Amino acid sequence: MAEIQTEVSVDHRFARLRTLLAQVSDLRSAASVLSWDQETYMPPGAVEARANHISTVRQLAHERFTSDEIGTLLDDLEPIAREMDPLSTEASLVRVIKRDFDKAVKLPLSLVAAISEAVSHGKDAWKYARQANRFGDFAPHLARLIDLNRQKAEAYGYEDRVYDALLDEYEPGIKTEQVEIIFRDLRRDLVPLVEAIADREEADDTVLHQKFERQKQWDFGLAVIRDFGYDMQRGRQDFSTHPFTTTFSITDVRITTRISDDFLNPGLFGTLHEAGHALYEQGVDIELERTLLADGTSLGMHESQSRLWENQVGRSRPFWEHYYSRLQRIFPDQLGDVPLDAFYRAINKVHPGPIRVEADELTYNLHIMLRFELENALLEGRLAVADLPEMWNAKMDDYLGITPLNDAQGVLQDIHWSLGAFGYFPTYALGNLMSSQLFDQAAEELPGLEGRIAEGDFEDLLEWLRTKIHRHGRKKDADDLLKDVTGRTLHAGSWLSHVRKKYGDLYDL
Amino acid sequence: MAEIQTEVSVDHRFARLRTLLAQVSDLRSAASVLSWDQETYMPPGAVEARANHISTVRQLAHERFTSDEIGTLLDDLEPIAREMDPLSTEASLVRVIKRDFDKAVKLPLSLVAAISEAVSHGKDAWKYARQANRFGDFAPHLARLIDLNRQKAEAYGYEDRVYDALLDEYEPGIKTEQVEIIFRDLRRDLVPLVEAIADREEADDTVLHQKFERQKQWDFGLAVIRDFGYDMQRGRQDFSTHPFTTTFSITDVRITTRISDDFLNPGLFGTLHEAGHALYEQGVDIELERTLLADGTSLGMHESQSRLWENQVGRSRPFWEHYYSRLQRIFPDQLGDVPLDAFYRAINKVHPGPIRVEADELTYNLHIMLRFELENALLEGRLAVADLPEMWNAKMDDYLGITPLNDAQGVLQDIHWSLGAFGYFPTYALGNLMSSQLFDQAAEELPGLEGRIAEGDFEDLLEWLRTKIHRHGRKKDADDLLKDVTGRTLHAGSWLSHVRKKYGDLYDL
Repeated sequence: MAEIQTEVSVDHRFARLRTLLAQVSDLRSAASVLSWDQETYMPPGAVEARANHISTVRQLAHERFTSDEIGTLLDDLEPIAREMDPLSTEASLVRVIKRDFDKAVKLPLSLVAAISEAVSHGKDAWKYARQANRFGDFAPHLARLIDLNRQKAEAYGYEDRVYDALLDEYEPGIKTEQVEIIFRDLRRDLVPLVEAIADREEADDTVLHQKFERQKQWDFGLAVIRDFGYDMQRGRQDFSTHPFTTTFSITDVRITTRISDDFLNPGLFGTLHEAGHALYEQGVDIELERTLLADGTSLGMHESQSRLWENQVGRSRPFWEHYYSRLQRIFPDQLGDVPLDAFYRAINKVHPGPIRVEADELTYNLHIMLRFELENALLEGRLAVADLPEMWNAKMDDYLGITPLNDAQGVLQDIHWSLGAFGYFPTYALGNLMSSQLFDQAAEELPGLEGRIAEGDFEDLLEWLRTKIHRHGRKKDADDLLKDVTGRTLHAGSWLSHVRKKYGDLYDL
Repeated sequence: MAEIQTEVSVDHRFARLRTLLAQVSDLRSAASVLSWDQETYMPPGAVEARANHISTVRQLAHERFTSDEIGTLLDDLEPIAREMDPLSTEASLVRVIKRDFDKAVKLPLSLVAAISEAVSHGKDAWKYARQANRFGDFAPHLARLIDLNRQKAEAYGYEDRVYDALLDEYEPGIKTEQVEIIFRDLRRDLVPLVEAIADREEADDTVLHQKFERQKQWDFGLAVIRDFGYDMQRGRQDFSTHPFTTTFSITDVRITTRISDDFLNPGLFGTLHEAGHALYEQGVDIELERTLLADGTSLGMHESQSRLWENQVGRSRPFWEHYYSRLQRIFPDQLGDVPLDAFYRAINKVHPGPIRVEADELTYNLHIMLRFELENALLEGRLAVADLPEMWNAKMDDYLGITPLNDAQGVLQDIHWSLGAFGYFPTYALGNLMSSQLFDQAAEELPGLEGRIAEGDFEDLLEWLRTKIHRHGRKKDADDLLKDVTGRTLHAGSWLSHVRKKYGDLYDL
């Protein structure tokens, strides 16, 4: 009799936990809708009011999430969940959400408030410093944000490196030292490859810099991502200044894009990139709806999905064997006389430049490594903020062989640090590496994959990604997931082979 | 010393009240954004998820609003507020919000839940009953909803009539008996007027039933409401199936419209109507932002603003003296040969029909009276649900001289009752009456008003409405406001004079 009561009570507690988490999930979704609207349709006069709406909803979501009731339920259920199938929704819920909860309650509210204020000032200071090209104006804010991030890391706790605690927010489970080892491998092979390409004749991409009618670009991009399998019954695309993907529910995953009317890349590859993110979120098991597990398992894994569709698929030759003639028919004046090979070379042009977001597939990771190294040096006190611009430029020269014209296109180019986000950057590069590791595995398990891509048929690939990655949501950590799917934890080898082969062919190395 | 402490403490309590109400206001705004998105851009697959988002946010707004802390603050501040200038924000806040609060806490949660469930079923049942033209399928749901509304009225309490308690939700301060008296006056003059017009030759409105390109309709409507003074920096227009106005903040008041490509009226007059609602909300004193007073003071007063711009302005001859040539240039094939007088007759065609939302300016109020009388009879037990269709049709014959073909276009046409909304309908007619009463007063205080409308100049009129009505938000009750502005409480006289004059001229009576 006593045992049956316990059973009932456990079920009841799981149900109660899900109810409470569902409310938190709804509030977070509401905040996301408010942000999406702000970036897409909101009239300009509403900025201040909307900041209040979002802040109130987020604060309430935080309050509800860190409630004593959720804490007690997680504590009570943890030993029970540990006895269950770890991939069951219940066990995953307790395991993953307990980790979130413990982190959330570790930050003192005073520190959260201090960070929020420093970010609010830092963001403005960064904006003006970049406009005026005056790093000195941003430096004190940066110093403050570094200090607050150190405090945050202390509050979270870490074993070896201060950076571990920060990285864990974006890429749970991975350690700074692992990233360093991976990046060392990467750098060793990548820098000489970029140098070798620099000695060759530069690819000509002038065909991409012509007038392309916006609506036609929009329609083509949309047609491609529908072919990928992006479900418009559970998604939509809108315009925004900065492209992003946002999820309100598994049944409502939206992307935005921006289109340049005199350069084909931002609209086209931006759309494929965001669709990759969206396919991940649309593919999560519906059973995880409103559990807080219906999300990508890490930023790196999320980026792996966007990069897989953008680069492994969208910048591949088989892909364009299918789509190029269609694109030529849409833009006959611009592309009618341009052969496929020339177009393919153009979209894969390697050109070391100072700006990360404009970087090509090959040099992008070097931008990331540089930031990762500088972040670590700053946080560990090995580098003073005042010396940052000089170190930035020295590393740019080392890795990419270029010197930024000024700090605005150097150390001041990214918004991330002004938002207090340290530990975020490496996930971009980790995502690139994961995308290759996963794509290679898919190619191995799906014979003829390239051929099907060359026919515009992505069904098997998407189904493979759904089964292996997407449906799990946050149930498995990124590195475990990689190991389960590919047999190896994260490494640089797949991606290096991919670029050696691809750019070796393109540049006749 | 003690006195100074009390002073500080009162200030502090007012500030605290405003902080708490601001949070409630933010949550309500968030729910409104969620609903707006649902009606405009949300992908179809997200219906269930969005219902959860909205329900959670609304529930939280309700919890926060009915908190003990707000209750105590209101109790403490009430005697203090009573000594203050009643139009001060503080005094108004306590007075108006205390009334809201007392109502909100009077409803037992069990009753709220029962209503919510009955509505959820009732709405579906109504939809299918209307489609199948089977009143019997909806009847038990309607009976239940009437019973629950009676319980609601008992919970709120009332002195004379059960309907008073329900009406008070939408039109605070006005009593059922007042409405009966006003409607009696209205009916006495209106029914013979409609009969007299029925004896005349019917106006020809075939010119309105042609193909009109949607984008051009959209652009024209938008141009007109910009001329009215609708501020696009603090608003926007989107498409939706059912037009509505929604307010997220005084700096973000949005309208939606629907456009028919073979009938000019829905898009054009729908846009002017919603713009009237929006001008009201955009005109509220910014000092009332996030106080819960930044809203129309009653549904009737709100409707008065939409009807004023739609009918008093937008269906007037002076208005079209300015705009008709422009509309002709936009639609030369459709309207190039149609003289202004013919167009003016067409848009003011009187045609008694069974459907409320398609009714003309003149017969619309008769549809409302019928519903008001039936609602009262049902709630007071003088009419059984089973006898409702027969009574509906009898009254349609009495007031409009027509008999609906079936219940789908009779008693089943409106969604309101299935949503549990009893006491809502009369506000439509009260709004019509108020619009005339206010417009007459404006015309008296603004000599040459018609002439300025004939020049497309609405500045004085909007400024007058802002000063007299809009800026006050909910500070003054509708009937007090009417009396302050026009010297008289609500009456039917202005509107009756307006239609006697207008339709007397049009139909040569």
